[in-house]
Amino acid sequence: MRIALDAMGGDNAPRSTVEGAVQACLADPALKIVLVGDEAQVKPHLPEQLPPGIELLHCSEVIEPDDEPVKAVRRKKDASMVVAVGLARDEKVDAVISAGNTGALMTAGLLIAGRMQGIERPALAALFPNMKSKATLVLDVGANMDAKPLHLLQYAIMGSLYAEKVLGYDRPTVALLNVGTEEAKGNELTKAVYPLLAASNVNFIGNVEARDVLDGMCDVLVCDGFSGNVMLKSMEGAVSTIFSQLKKEFLSSFVNKIAAAILKPSLTRFKSRLDYSEYGGAPLLGLRRPVVKAHGSSNAHAIKNAILVASRFAQLDVNGYVQKEMEAGRESERE
Amino acid sequence: MRIALDAMGGDNAPRSTVEGAVQACLADPALKIVLVGDEAQVKPHLPEQLPPGIELLHCSEVIEPDDEPVKAVRRKKDASMVVAVGLARDEKVDAVISAGNTGALMTAGLLIAGRMQGIERPALAALFPNMKSKATLVLDVGANMDAKPLHLLQYAIMGSLYAEKVLGYDRPTVALLNVGTEEAKGNELTKAVYPLLAASNVNFIGNVEARDVLDGMCDVLVCDGFSGNVMLKSMEGAVSTIFSQLKKEFLSSFVNKIAAAILKPSLTRFKSRLDYSEYGGAPLLGLRRPVVKAHGSSNAHAIKNAILVASRFAQLDVNGYVQKEMEAGRESERE
Repeated sequence: MRIALDAMGGDNAPRSTVEGAVQACLADPALKIVLVGDEAQVKPHLPEQLPPGIELLHCSEVIEPDDEPVKAVRRKKDASMVVAVGLARDEKVDAVISAGNTGALMTAGLLIAGRMQGIERPALAALFPNMKSKATLVLDVGANMDAKPLHLLQYAIMGSLYAEKVLGYDRPTVALLNVGTEEAKGNELTKAVYPLLAASNVNFIGNVEARDVLDGMCDVLVCDGFSGNVMLKSMEGAVSTIFSQLKKEFLSSFVNKIAAAILKPSLTRFKSRLDYSEYGGAPLLGLRRPVVKAHGSSNAHAIKNAILVASRFAQLDVNGYVQKEMEAGRESERE
Repeated sequence: MRIALDAMGGDNAPRSTVEGAVQACLADPALKIVLVGDEAQVKPHLPEQLPPGIELLHCSEVIEPDDEPVKAVRRKKDASMVVAVGLARDEKVDAVISAGNTGALMTAGLLIAGRMQGIERPALAALFPNMKSKATLVLDVGANMDAKPLHLLQYAIMGSLYAEKVLGYDRPTVALLNVGTEEAKGNELTKAVYPLLAASNVNFIGNVEARDVLDGMCDVLVCDGFSGNVMLKSMEGAVSTIFSQLKKEFLSSFVNKIAAAILKPSLTRFKSRLDYSEYGGAPLLGLRRPVVKAHGSSNAHAIKNAILVASRFAQLDVNGYVQKEMEAGRESERE
């Protein structure tokens, strides 16, 4: 598999991206990685002799975290992210990864790689850790703010295939994010989506409330991008507030410090289960080419995992399966 | 102040409600509380001699947690919740409280107490603890699933007045729940609401993301009922999952148990800051009479706090101030 990696994207780039690429190549010697970025900034983090499998492609511009997505993608033609997605469009690589500006990556995906035929709206998926020691794929978490019922049905189909192929879940369960479990609950959107999901081929198990997601009530959860984003950030906020407050309490006295030191291995183990970096990147589903968004604060370990995820995304031909489902759907409509 | 309390509502009722009522009367001897419920079930929890300030009103029916709200309110005319809201409508009490079925309480509020003149949709508000040692009032968290821009403007006005009068916040800051802080972010609803809030009399500070709510970025946060409900349940789920997993880790070995025992006072102190019961009930804003929803799992302490909240809600005449704002709004439209 050939992967283009935006070497300049993310809070810790290019150090994290370069080190992540090297780690990924060690983990899978069959990988070919194109590091796309400013040579002067990337090179200092590379060994003098380029490791086998890694190639460096120089470009002069960078999309910043606060750049306006559409403007940035249109104007910065030589930005690392834009060039990387261009390599995917031209089939010079099989997949592309960036930990940079999420909106810009979605825009580049749409404008450069393009939408898959039959898909109305691409979706950004995120992996939520859950207490069943698996992860729940939630989509959309922010690609498309005003979703229509058909969009959510397509998210369910794409998410289900991704969970089956890339995550290895057997006949993944699919649920609809809602404010109650009864069928009649929710807003106009969820009420219209429910019967579509129930009549579809996905393994639909009904509505799930946000409070039950971390318990692993479903493998795939579909929602509009606004609600999904609110859920993602609510949980991120709660986890980060709780751990930072616990730290304060644990350091508040000498005996507390000693007790906390004893508990540290347990706490670290638990925190790592909530850690995004273990789960690699979040796929953008519905684009013509596999695009993976790594978390903005990714370290080298997270980048390595994102690369392995992108490689599976391409190798297992998730897009091919989605395309087939879409065509089957159109066939059955015609009949 | 005279308060009607649905003695049968909540997971721990009638024990929690009766004990909460007794505690509230001790805390504020000027209170008159009407306990509405099944005499046979309520009496065993009361002292033989009814405490001064407490009155018992027998009724024969109960609305169950899984009853369909509209049907239940229409058919169970002698249900404790229905009778309690009726006392408020007839001005026999100044406010009403229930820890029972939330949907049924909103329905009873609408059908029996009625909407305030000029208010398009009542809103259910919830108090979120925050790390500034204050609470953030979030509305709507589920009364109205498909909100229009004008609804959110009215939530902002009602929430701001409630935060000022009942919570005692000086010129409370009001924010819009969104997926980013820039004005142009969000869905069609938030984009339409932003300029309305910016032009209003509330102390609007812009968009706030869900991850920053627990940090106390604003005093009042407005959102549609679906997103608000998702945020509330996401945070509840994260908090409950984290604490139950921590408990498991802390009990996983003998030394861990000892260390955890040392840290227990700190943990308890911190957990109590995240505890809903400290914050009392959540107001239903926009109804003709003050209605307060206590959490379903309220203990006596939470019920007592909810009673004190309902008493302030009525005494400080929040509804009167809201009515004045609405009239002022209509005046300025006419000019």
